[in-house]
Amino acid sequence: MTTSRPARVFPVPPEPADVPAPLPEPDAADLRLETVLGALSDPLRLRVVRKLLLESEAFDHPCGWFGLDRPKSSLTHHFKALREAGVTRQRQYGLERRSQVRVADLEARFPGLLALVADWTPPSG
Amino acid sequence: MTTSRPARVFPVPPEPADVPAPLPEPDAADLRLETVLGALSDPLRLRVVRKLLLESEAFDHPCGWFGLDRPKSSLTHHFKALREAGVTRQRQYGLERRSQVRVADLEARFPGLLALVADWTPPSG
Repeated sequence: MTTSRPARVFPVPPEPADVPAPLPEPDAADLRLETVLGALSDPLRLRVVRKLLLESEAFDHPCGWFGLDRPKSSLTHHFKALREAGVTRQRQYGLERRSQVRVADLEARFPGLLALVADWTPPSG
Repeated sequence: MTTSRPARVFPVPPEPADVPAPLPEPDAADLRLETVLGALSDPLRLRVVRKLLLESEAFDHPCGWFGLDRPKSSLTHHFKALREAGVTRQRQYGLERRSQVRVADLEARFPGLLALVADWTPPSG
């Protein structure tokens, strides 16, 4: 039995010309639910993905854009974990890595998951 | 912008008379997405929840019903982790604990999440 539920659509900014190639990441067909859920089971990572979903102003964003008060090495680790799980795509622009959410791949494989992230509220305090 | 997506409905077996009280668990209002995703970011736990969603034959099920080839202490740990995250409810029947999925609570707080679990396929090999 099924009922109907609205599906959120997240706008994806257009890809500029000449963007660098993505850093290594799993193919869409190789995304694993347990791995994606593990990558999202952290408030900082949920905050990153939610901000990209709801507030993206460009095709992809460097870690400074997120305004996260954490050491650079910690942020590098979290952004890499999101990419290696297949949640985000990262590209290297000179010394800077920028991230975007793999909206189409995740919606195709795990429909509705990104809506849960978008609706997440950070823990209080 | 939204489109429409079918929502799965999972049948919940009726509650028998005189079931024991649930073991300690978070209230529905206190469920946290990051905690629930963490509890589900494990193939064994996904297997447990998926089997309960798709194959439940009774109101709740003891760990032997799942046919998992793991030491009892490991299973106890995993079932407790699911309960403490709010994914399952456990009740003590004499020496035995039985689990059920908190379908209504999870669907209300995180609509669509259980459908992803039901559609999950275990890793090959």
